[in-house]
Amino acid sequence: MTARLAAASALVSLASAPALADEGMWTLDNFPAEKVKEDYGWAPDQAWLDKVQAGAVRLTGGCSASFVSSSGLILTNHHCIATCLYDNSNDQSDYLLNGFVADRRENELMCPGQQAEVVTKITDVTGDVKAAFAGLAGDALTKARDAKIAEIESANCTDKAKTRCQVVTLFGGGQYKLYQYRKYSDVRLAWAPEDRAATFGGDPDNFNFPRYSMDASFLRAYENGKPVSTPNHLRWNPRAPIDGEMTFVVGNPGSTSRLYTQSQLAFEREVRLPMILATYSELRGRLIRAMEESPEHEREGLDMLGGIENSLKVYIGRVKALNDPAFTAKLAEAEAALKAETAGNDEIGDPWADVEEAVDAYRALYYPSRFTSPTGTLYGYAQTLVYAAQEREKPNAERLRGFTESALPLTEKRLTDAKPVYPWLDEMTMSWSLSKAREYLGVDDEDSKLLLGKESPEQLAERLVNGTKLADPAVRKALWDGGLAAIEASEDPMIQYALKLAPRQRELDEQTNELYSGPLAAAGAKLADARFAAYGDSLYPDATFTLRISYGQVKGWTERGKEVPTTTTMGGTFERATGNAPFDLAPGFVKAKDQIDMDAVYDFVTTNDIIGGNSGSPVIDRNGTVIGAAFDGNINSLGGNYGYDGSINRTVVVSTEAVQEALEKIYPAPALVKELAAK
Amino acid sequence: MTARLAAASALVSLASAPALADEGMWTLDNFPAEKVKEDYGWAPDQAWLDKVQAGAVRLTGGCSASFVSSSGLILTNHHCIATCLYDNSNDQSDYLLNGFVADRRENELMCPGQQAEVVTKITDVTGDVKAAFAGLAGDALTKARDAKIAEIESANCTDKAKTRCQVVTLFGGGQYKLYQYRKYSDVRLAWAPEDRAATFGGDPDNFNFPRYSMDASFLRAYENGKPVSTPNHLRWNPRAPIDGEMTFVVGNPGSTSRLYTQSQLAFEREVRLPMILATYSELRGRLIRAMEESPEHEREGLDMLGGIENSLKVYIGRVKALNDPAFTAKLAEAEAALKAETAGNDEIGDPWADVEEAVDAYRALYYPSRFTSPTGTLYGYAQTLVYAAQEREKPNAERLRGFTESALPLTEKRLTDAKPVYPWLDEMTMSWSLSKAREYLGVDDEDSKLLLGKESPEQLAERLVNGTKLADPAVRKALWDGGLAAIEASEDPMIQYALKLAPRQRELDEQTNELYSGPLAAAGAKLADARFAAYGDSLYPDATFTLRISYGQVKGWTERGKEVPTTTTMGGTFERATGNAPFDLAPGFVKAKDQIDMDAVYDFVTTNDIIGGNSGSPVIDRNGTVIGAAFDGNINSLGGNYGYDGSINRTVVVSTEAVQEALEKIYPAPALVKELAAK
Repeated sequence: MTARLAAASALVSLASAPALADEGMWTLDNFPAEKVKEDYGWAPDQAWLDKVQAGAVRLTGGCSASFVSSSGLILTNHHCIATCLYDNSNDQSDYLLNGFVADRRENELMCPGQQAEVVTKITDVTGDVKAAFAGLAGDALTKARDAKIAEIESANCTDKAKTRCQVVTLFGGGQYKLYQYRKYSDVRLAWAPEDRAATFGGDPDNFNFPRYSMDASFLRAYENGKPVSTPNHLRWNPRAPIDGEMTFVVGNPGSTSRLYTQSQLAFEREVRLPMILATYSELRGRLIRAMEESPEHEREGLDMLGGIENSLKVYIGRVKALNDPAFTAKLAEAEAALKAETAGNDEIGDPWADVEEAVDAYRALYYPSRFTSPTGTLYGYAQTLVYAAQEREKPNAERLRGFTESALPLTEKRLTDAKPVYPWLDEMTMSWSLSKAREYLGVDDEDSKLLLGKESPEQLAERLVNGTKLADPAVRKALWDGGLAAIEASEDPMIQYALKLAPRQRELDEQTNELYSGPLAAAGAKLADARFAAYGDSLYPDATFTLRISYGQVKGWTERGKEVPTTTTMGGTFERATGNAPFDLAPGFVKAKDQIDMDAVYDFVTTNDIIGGNSGSPVIDRNGTVIGAAFDGNINSLGGNYGYDGSINRTVVVSTEAVQEALEKIYPAPALVKELAAK
Repeated sequence: MTARLAAASALVSLASAPALADEGMWTLDNFPAEKVKEDYGWAPDQAWLDKVQAGAVRLTGGCSASFVSSSGLILTNHHCIATCLYDNSNDQSDYLLNGFVADRRENELMCPGQQAEVVTKITDVTGDVKAAFAGLAGDALTKARDAKIAEIESANCTDKAKTRCQVVTLFGGGQYKLYQYRKYSDVRLAWAPEDRAATFGGDPDNFNFPRYSMDASFLRAYENGKPVSTPNHLRWNPRAPIDGEMTFVVGNPGSTSRLYTQSQLAFEREVRLPMILATYSELRGRLIRAMEESPEHEREGLDMLGGIENSLKVYIGRVKALNDPAFTAKLAEAEAALKAETAGNDEIGDPWADVEEAVDAYRALYYPSRFTSPTGTLYGYAQTLVYAAQEREKPNAERLRGFTESALPLTEKRLTDAKPVYPWLDEMTMSWSLSKAREYLGVDDEDSKLLLGKESPEQLAERLVNGTKLADPAVRKALWDGGLAAIEASEDPMIQYALKLAPRQRELDEQTNELYSGPLAAAGAKLADARFAAYGDSLYPDATFTLRISYGQVKGWTERGKEVPTTTTMGGTFERATGNAPFDLAPGFVKAKDQIDMDAVYDFVTTNDIIGGNSGSPVIDRNGTVIGAAFDGNINSLGGNYGYDGSINRTVVVSTEAVQEALEKIYPAPALVKELAAK
């Protein structure tokens, strides 16, 4: 599961024009200080921004976070570490259900696949990368670009144990920037509330407000078995927010499509979103029913269901946004305005037409590309093993993105970290994805035949899942270490299946590069040039799961004529409870009822512009202290993938005041309270 | 389940302009003989049409059919009577799985809820109905219109045992016609192949061709315990179709929206279809998983799954059509052309604007209207009982449509016919629909609160389904007979729940009439006048599940550059079989393999314009003899709800030659063979 966050809708901004008030996921090297000062009378200076950057954490699980003590303590959301609770649970101890408080540091729980990263340096490498593919097109362009990126990353991060380098594509190819990170690959869980406290209201309340959710938790970064020292942490400030005060959200918004052209939006609306809506809704249904079959299924399926329902709500919101004529008209106007600004500029030409041609070509590649990689944890392991073995035979510059020297350590960590696999869940998922492949590709399609042979989706999934040994991390490690020889000699049916599919997947990748990604990279650079020429640097790039800052204020909104309040209180959750899931109170809340300060602010909303990936981001006041953790957007923000509307888009935050209440009274953790209070 | 049929897509006709070649679902009193003669050199005369009308049968289950012997024998599709097989099955004898051949007439199986109807007279009552609501608007208009319709129906069908009257609204309110039927309310099953033979290829092959499906069966109409005499039957002609020969499909297409205005299409695309796609896909997933839980669930869920998957494929096709800019551009052009023709005509004014206003108002009513009537067989019984009791207290003219004197007999039959109810299935369906209600209406919505109170969807569904006695037909009959007093005194929780919801449902109905249906009826009449003024009578009305004829020819098509053949052979099914569901051969086919004529034509395609409801329609040659039963449309025809494209839309038919093979060699029924051969 990546995150619960999203941002933007109806009075949408002009996507490629200068940002509206409070709009923007700004890179920390291009903060719009002047504009902010104009709007708010105050803006952070570079020292303030540097300090915040040093305390901001990216979690490779797909979330954001922040250091909040000098001993590596990390604040993030509960839903960002739910998988860690789930991976550490079993029939005897269900940490997801019951929450977790480490009685001492030695008992903090390892989180498989999780890694914490802090940006240490940002360097512009646009010139180098663009020069590498100048004059090239299609697949040749993407190969030359990726080779240069691999070279830059490799040269700048020689200490692979502690650093990570990533070249990030901004403005769809207008800029390339090298992000260097200090990384911490041993991350453990220190504190988490009960799942019922974090997910009170469940899917029905997700993306809604008023809200009553303790969506917070604490991790800790380790190195050599010891907590790391983090003197540059942010300061924990357990106070209530003040209506109208300025707030900054610093985190890693995952992905937005605000710079999409009309033809890209059409593809989303016409092809991609309807398919996702139908197929994921079916998976949701299969899983809901399966979880009713037994308490084990209920527990083992919970994490996946949360992820599916969250994603579906996001996609339903996107469908709604792209089916809203007022919303899409604004996007069309923005494109028309940029075209008008660019008219007659021969250097820019007509990149919109190039994008349209690429999108048209992609229409024939999309279903095959999507469906020839079946879904499932075990198949995913097999595919990674097969690709890694094949790619590692090549020089660094020729490898696929996830397998370059700079990317391999995280890929290996994710593959080999021990985590439970539930065969019934994998069989269900794989059977679903194979049957959807046949449905969307057609029975007589060659890719369908490659995927299924004479077997049914159900039979094939059962045979592969029951026959594979890849659930065992030692088996995965041995195959990883054994390289291509071990993979090719393997009799594991899942490995053999992944080997069988790989050539076709690679062929589709190449076609996609040739006809779609390559042309898009070239056109993207031109579109970015057009924007820079028209609007200067008053622009922010689409989200790329890299560090951004958004500014705004604590503020409610008006929904269908009714004022929505800015905050909820701890007492409100007792009033909303019905006794029935998902509106049943967490037992810890019931038990601590008499101690809890009913007037303490629980959750609150701000105008910050965020999206999925921002989950867990610290919400910071003017003084740079943490007053909450962002965990959601409101329902109006679901079109935020395409555009932002400050009048109704809101970020939903759990307040530090509420978390402090929980730390002191509901899930007591006196050591953490003390640690957070230290200067 | 209603039907597998649909029709129309890309080179779509101008919806409100004169029909293209082979387009049209024509009423039998307005057949375009001149145009057909021009295109084909021959056209049927009125005597031919009258003969065909006399042999054409409507099945109240939602299908079409035809009399094919003088002793009441009826040809229709297997999927039209699958529910009858299902209702007659149990753990001991699974007729759906094994098929059914009555060894003698006394053993033919009763089909609950099924009724056969033959049109005997069509009368234009447009003047009467329009006069009744002249000068009225909104809810008052719909009330006056419905009162007049009830009066006409009641006055013209005094023999309620043998006749049925229905006033049908054509051209969205341009015409009102009284259809009188001879009805046969005792319908029994004589012959059906194995489910695997009818549904070979399952959902993957549904709406596709080449096809290998024995989607045929025979019913028989009874009266007073004896087969009825049907001298005006059509003649059974067990021969192969000839490439290019003319074909006529006579049946009851259920519903099309080809006369929709742009604002109605926008509502479909923006609101209705995405919701249906997501919610029904989830139900599909729940049911797929539930059916894997046990052989009983597998058997008991099969019929519903077939219906859901069929509907979903139709809706996915509609989404695709309305997301195809080429397709929708044609529809927009057609509207623009009609507007241009009408410009300056003050009598017509701007009905498009009236429709848009009505649709805008409906946006706020749609979710509440849809979700305040939960889904489920048992809840459906309760709702019918409550409404019937309340409506029967009123004079005929003031009752809701399904409860007028003319409609009550079928309503009562459907309610009281014995058929199995599977509580797990009803609980699943109801729990699903209540949870979707909360999702789409929102937790804090008043209708959500009315539906759920403090209970969860799962709890409420369990309590109502486990507590109700309505699965027992005797209980339903007693409550029906007991009227309002019995209903209000009932302690059945499902009845109490239906009573609780009824006032809000009625309020929403009235608001819908006032703001949507009433304005649409008035605007529809004007739009029809505009069409008649511009194009004369060279028009066919949208489908209304009343008798229509479509003409065309036996003809393949070109799909992505490849010729699709016109026919398949019995031998082809053996080649396509993989041994795995849904491509596993029916055991009967395996057993009879050496006897079957491998070159016999199995299924074939024609250019006829049909849609769901046409399932089971006789496919008739120039001589008026039956050469097949239509059972499907091809994949391109799924946009047929909105428009027809003769170049790629096809009707899929099971040939009489194949059915004859089955009757003689696979599922031998010598008595039927003899009966069909008789003159």
